[in-house]
Amino acid sequence: MNKIEHIGIAVKNLKDSNDLFSKLFGKAHYKTEEVKSEGVNTSFFKVGENKIELLEATKKDSPIAKFIEKKGEGIHHIAFDVDDIVSEIKRLKAEGFIVLNETPKRGADNKLVAFLHPKTANGVLIELCQEIKQ
Amino acid sequence: MNKIEHIGIAVKNLKDSNDLFSKLFGKAHYKTEEVKSEGVNTSFFKVGENKIELLEATKKDSPIAKFIEKKGEGIHHIAFDVDDIVSEIKRLKAEGFIVLNETPKRGADNKLVAFLHPKTANGVLIELCQEIKQ
Repeated sequence: MNKIEHIGIAVKNLKDSNDLFSKLFGKAHYKTEEVKSEGVNTSFFKVGENKIELLEATKKDSPIAKFIEKKGEGIHHIAFDVDDIVSEIKRLKAEGFIVLNETPKRGADNKLVAFLHPKTANGVLIELCQEIKQ
Repeated sequence: MNKIEHIGIAVKNLKDSNDLFSKLFGKAHYKTEEVKSEGVNTSFFKVGENKIELLEATKKDSPIAKFIEKKGEGIHHIAFDVDDIVSEIKRLKAEGFIVLNETPKRGADNKLVAFLHPKTANGVLIELCQEIKQ
């Protein structure tokens, strides 16, 4: 794993949270993206080599809507940048982690992604992500 | 803010979690440190330029013990590296954030630290940290 690629934060209202995080970082988000398959609108901020991804649900059965209903707004997941997501999935399965996406799926920000179940990772939802080379 | 300095994760048993995160990252933690003033034992892993800090309570009234009692194990805070913590505290107060430590205090890993209240930051406990120059 190369670095923390991003931290995903579940928010109720993306516009309000874009304003808030702009104040925190002293600069605006640099892009927004809808991920229809996940039922989310996202926005991204850069902090050095790392990113913060804000996540707003676009429908009631979105994982983000369910997360906020249960736990309130806050940190949703940590994503680690990897070079070879397929081999990392294999390695982590062998180590006993429950991998939620044995075949990586397409996520936001031009990435292949796979999640590890929080119950095998100290309550932390972990995302692996590999940039899709053009 | 220069980068995500670390993510703090509240755990029940530091030894067990050191084993777990060693499997996740494919390498061991590189140091442990007790912070008596906070009632925590910590261990640190490097992931590129970023760190993961595991936090185990050493007493019942430690903030980490209370966090786990309320929310279970999981992500406790995000820490951002800053060059000048005093000016960042001043700037963020003026932007409307509630700063929990108006005078920065000494934290783990040779840092001056200050926290922002989660209620002014979308439910996220944010730490500012500045390395103490020797």
